[in-house]
Amino acid sequence: MAAHEFDLIRDYFQHLTAARDDVILGIGDDCALLQPPAGRQLAVTSDTLVAGCHFFPDVDAYTLGHKSLAVNLSDLAAMGATPCWATLSLTLPEADQAWIARFSEGFASLASQYQLQLIGGDMSRGPLSVTLTLHGHIDAGRALRRDAAGTGQLICVSGRLGEAAHVLQRLKSGEVVDATARKPLEMPMPQVMLGQRLAGAASACIDISDGLLADLSHVCRQSHCGAYLYADKIPSPAGLTDDQWRDCVLGGGDDYQLCFTLQASAYPALSKWAQQHDIAIAIIGECIAAEIIKLEYADGRIESFPEPAGYRHF
Amino acid sequence: MAAHEFDLIRDYFQHLTAARDDVILGIGDDCALLQPPAGRQLAVTSDTLVAGCHFFPDVDAYTLGHKSLAVNLSDLAAMGATPCWATLSLTLPEADQAWIARFSEGFASLASQYQLQLIGGDMSRGPLSVTLTLHGHIDAGRALRRDAAGTGQLICVSGRLGEAAHVLQRLKSGEVVDATARKPLEMPMPQVMLGQRLAGAASACIDISDGLLADLSHVCRQSHCGAYLYADKIPSPAGLTDDQWRDCVLGGGDDYQLCFTLQASAYPALSKWAQQHDIAIAIIGECIAAEIIKLEYADGRIESFPEPAGYRHF
Repeated sequence: MAAHEFDLIRDYFQHLTAARDDVILGIGDDCALLQPPAGRQLAVTSDTLVAGCHFFPDVDAYTLGHKSLAVNLSDLAAMGATPCWATLSLTLPEADQAWIARFSEGFASLASQYQLQLIGGDMSRGPLSVTLTLHGHIDAGRALRRDAAGTGQLICVSGRLGEAAHVLQRLKSGEVVDATARKPLEMPMPQVMLGQRLAGAASACIDISDGLLADLSHVCRQSHCGAYLYADKIPSPAGLTDDQWRDCVLGGGDDYQLCFTLQASAYPALSKWAQQHDIAIAIIGECIAAEIIKLEYADGRIESFPEPAGYRHF
Repeated sequence: MAAHEFDLIRDYFQHLTAARDDVILGIGDDCALLQPPAGRQLAVTSDTLVAGCHFFPDVDAYTLGHKSLAVNLSDLAAMGATPCWATLSLTLPEADQAWIARFSEGFASLASQYQLQLIGGDMSRGPLSVTLTLHGHIDAGRALRRDAAGTGQLICVSGRLGEAAHVLQRLKSGEVVDATARKPLEMPMPQVMLGQRLAGAASACIDISDGLLADLSHVCRQSHCGAYLYADKIPSPAGLTDDQWRDCVLGGGDDYQLCFTLQASAYPALSKWAQQHDIAIAIIGECIAAEIIKLEYADGRIESFPEPAGYRHF
């Protein structure tokens, strides 16, 4: 890592994130030095957010700091891993100190909930973008993989789907949406605690970043099964038109809820735990042998989705 | 990590890099799953290269793939670590398949020399930039830190300094420089093997990415010592004017050679090893107690550098 970047990263970020015992050497050398937890496996994920592609260029820096971390934490959640370390690469058109301070506050506010330590990264001059690499750890054999769903198992989701996409639709149509209503899009909360509870209890899991159909189709393809869903069981915002429901709930991404499969016998205990922790989960269907996604509407009509499309970056 | 990115990353990169036993789950799930080597520490580094800031936007994709990896491998080299895993975040204005193929070849050609496996990452649409996060491992207590130099120890460098900066000067002046002559700038070779040899033998080490004075000053500051250097002992390209020598050899970065300190008694064995492996190393000075860098020229003149400046990203 290059020189002066350190000073900026250190000045704004270091004091804001945890000081973990397993970080032998943090920001300030060529590499960070880390002591992996004995007997655990590491889960590593990396995601980039680019201005104009993943967020509006004039987005508030605080919410961008939050969301950059949230989308990566969501990937750890989908594996059932416990977050530990992060590196941050921030590319900025100029060294706007107030902007960096706001960004770091949004980042650190979420990081502190998980004892996540920023261990390195860099800052560069260029078009605004954020790349985070996150590390978590988990016991061997307990990670929630995409290839572990089985015929007859329940398909569940957390939270409500389509909220973020609906906000985005409203913003794109020119509507003024206040900060509170923009929260599902700008300040998603990753389901880290739920993911950890699911490890060892659920079979497959994925976070819904590209849309329910697109993300569930990855689970189906990798698990060599299909899905039979019930439209009226999918938790969604009230007041959507049919088209909006289709676009936002089935196709919209950015909610960062979890979609997971499990044996029906495991559901009651999970449901009780979720209620105790005020986490909404719902059964939306079940895994079927045929490698297709079918959706049954309340009126009995059944729609098939052989190749669902989600958000495409190209 | 989001969906369709996988397909592109998998198509172009997966078959080109190693398949390591310690990678439980590679590209294609929410996270990679890794089994850290028992009893070793992890070294992690992350660096971004942005078009127009770190490289010319029309640079050949093959050389960019190589250099993106080289600059990160150089950080592992500076710690003495053994490379193992990488994540790659690639932001591109368009999905130019020929460009991606060239980039992946340059990346993979260097990665294969180190059994480095690409374990994840993403592709986004936006202004061209590359972020890599690299993992290596090393025995506890053997990493080459910046804070371990001591008064009286030798200061050494590998290779020749100023070559990359001199090529950059020529290109910026409008000169046509052929591909072979551009190599020091575009295809730097990280000193990974030397770094591993130095672990346990040298005291402090840093890679020269921002220029000799700037990088050595980090070692001095963190080790609470200074440096006394001999200008005519610093290996440099022939034929530079005095100004060029100063700008390129003292201030120029991008060479990715190592600057390290060690006890004089450790030098003979290291020198013999380096000769056997055709790696150039040279003694350029020694550590002094005063926290300043002094440079003695061949004519006896001595210059002092209280606050050396290197490449500043802002």
